[in-house]
Amino acid sequence: MPSSEFSLISRYFSSLGRGSAVDLSVGDDCALLHLESGEQLATSIDTLLPGVHFPEDAFPEDIGFRAVAVAVSDLAAMGARPLGMTLALTLPEADDFWLNTFSQGLAEAVSAFGIPLVGGDTTRGPLTISVQVMGALPEGKALLRDGAQPGDRVCVTGFLGDAAGALAFLNDQWQPPAEHAEYLLSRFYRPTPRLELGRSLLGKATAAIDISDGLLADAGHIAAASGSKIELEPTLLPLSEALNSGPSTEQAMKWAMTGGDDYELCFTLPAEQTVPEGCTLIGRVTDGEGVDCGMDIAGSPGYRHF
Amino acid sequence: MPSSEFSLISRYFSSLGRGSAVDLSVGDDCALLHLESGEQLATSIDTLLPGVHFPEDAFPEDIGFRAVAVAVSDLAAMGARPLGMTLALTLPEADDFWLNTFSQGLAEAVSAFGIPLVGGDTTRGPLTISVQVMGALPEGKALLRDGAQPGDRVCVTGFLGDAAGALAFLNDQWQPPAEHAEYLLSRFYRPTPRLELGRSLLGKATAAIDISDGLLADAGHIAAASGSKIELEPTLLPLSEALNSGPSTEQAMKWAMTGGDDYELCFTLPAEQTVPEGCTLIGRVTDGEGVDCGMDIAGSPGYRHF
Repeated sequence: MPSSEFSLISRYFSSLGRGSAVDLSVGDDCALLHLESGEQLATSIDTLLPGVHFPEDAFPEDIGFRAVAVAVSDLAAMGARPLGMTLALTLPEADDFWLNTFSQGLAEAVSAFGIPLVGGDTTRGPLTISVQVMGALPEGKALLRDGAQPGDRVCVTGFLGDAAGALAFLNDQWQPPAEHAEYLLSRFYRPTPRLELGRSLLGKATAAIDISDGLLADAGHIAAASGSKIELEPTLLPLSEALNSGPSTEQAMKWAMTGGDDYELCFTLPAEQTVPEGCTLIGRVTDGEGVDCGMDIAGSPGYRHF
Repeated sequence: MPSSEFSLISRYFSSLGRGSAVDLSVGDDCALLHLESGEQLATSIDTLLPGVHFPEDAFPEDIGFRAVAVAVSDLAAMGARPLGMTLALTLPEADDFWLNTFSQGLAEAVSAFGIPLVGGDTTRGPLTISVQVMGALPEGKALLRDGAQPGDRVCVTGFLGDAAGALAFLNDQWQPPAEHAEYLLSRFYRPTPRLELGRSLLGKATAAIDISDGLLADAGHIAAASGSKIELEPTLLPLSEALNSGPSTEQAMKWAMTGGDDYELCFTLPAEQTVPEGCTLIGRVTDGEGVDCGMDIAGSPGYRHF
């Protein structure tokens, strides 16, 4: 990478590159990482754009945290252990304040998820943030989308729909009670990739996915990949107190069913497995295809680009 | 990733995902790859922008090929064996012609360098192409920048300065003889990462880097990392017939000394090692610091962003 990019990166990001799997961090042609014996490499890349994936006026600190969380969530959905990540950052200008606060958000995510920043490329252009994550998995044990079997139960982590409620708030479509506003915004800007829970599902869950497009769409990916049908029970959807304070129960359930950006996990469990703590049983896998969500949904199933 | 992104990617890129190290390609939350026992993971990310890294009117096929070649060159510079890559592609619109020809260029690079495309993210916005490459290396054997020792010889692969000559041609600063025009453009748009040569240097070269910023700047990175001085002999620089047909010998040598984008390798060899076939001895490592290039260079040493 050109030298001035390296100076930029080393100035703001060099303290974020240490980790137990990192043999060599930012500063050479490549970073070097190691896996343990019997492990596979899991990798994924995600791009965030202003006005598409976060509001134009979002705090750089939140943007930095969210960019990492969204990418790390794909590792959680496979049950992988984070090894490291690289960042491709395109910026209109080398703005000190922006870089400082953005890298603060990155640093918080690096620390929260244990995923060091081992390399990057900084270029001048319209703001574009791509984070590529690498993780490790016991060979052949990954949580895929294609293993759901009729008879399995469908579960999710945490609460659903909070990020959709936050977006409605940010877009002035809903004014939540003052005591819930901060919680909702943090659910959008600071999602929690379910790394620990994902790893605990290895060898137990038959399929898993992270909810980025919305439950309905993402359960649909499991159904399609598994060649099964998923039946969801809307009254079982876990709703936060904030969402329950929302405009109506019906709206809250719609947000939970179709809103993206929660980055909770949806997974399928054979009948003999106990539903893990902090998770909620919301439906079952049956013969057939597609998703029956048990309620009338107007509009598109989940968020789409293009 | 949102479902419509997946359709895009699967439509244009899904045939590019097979490879010997690929356990699971595009289509789940992560791709899965494996390393051989005793191997380390090498990784790097590079972003290409129109008007910065390639002319606005470049053919999409060339853009696709070049994006991969530039990123793979970092694997070559470490001596790594390609495993796979991910692509973060931001596009103003889902233009069929563009995607078709771009993915043709990608496919040519996938085949030429043996690096399957195992994952990606497609978003709508100003054209931005980030390619993140993964490779494997025998543990502890990587070609780093910091091992050059006084007494070592400095070598390069191929010819230098061709890409700078091509850029001068593209910018109407020089009209090369007709018989050299195509060669020069292919040297800019279709660089050849020196994968095989890089791997043959494992255990032999004391330091290596790929020439992206220009020889002077990149040799400077080796000198700085190694705590040594590099003395280059400009009359030894390997110049192609096309460059020798250029405006003047002095201009050709300047292009070879400071022009970026050739993606040849610069490496240092202990005195007892033979200079490999296709490589040229161009200088030596001595006590001291910095680079003595033996000629008067006006302007900046290598290409810089920001």
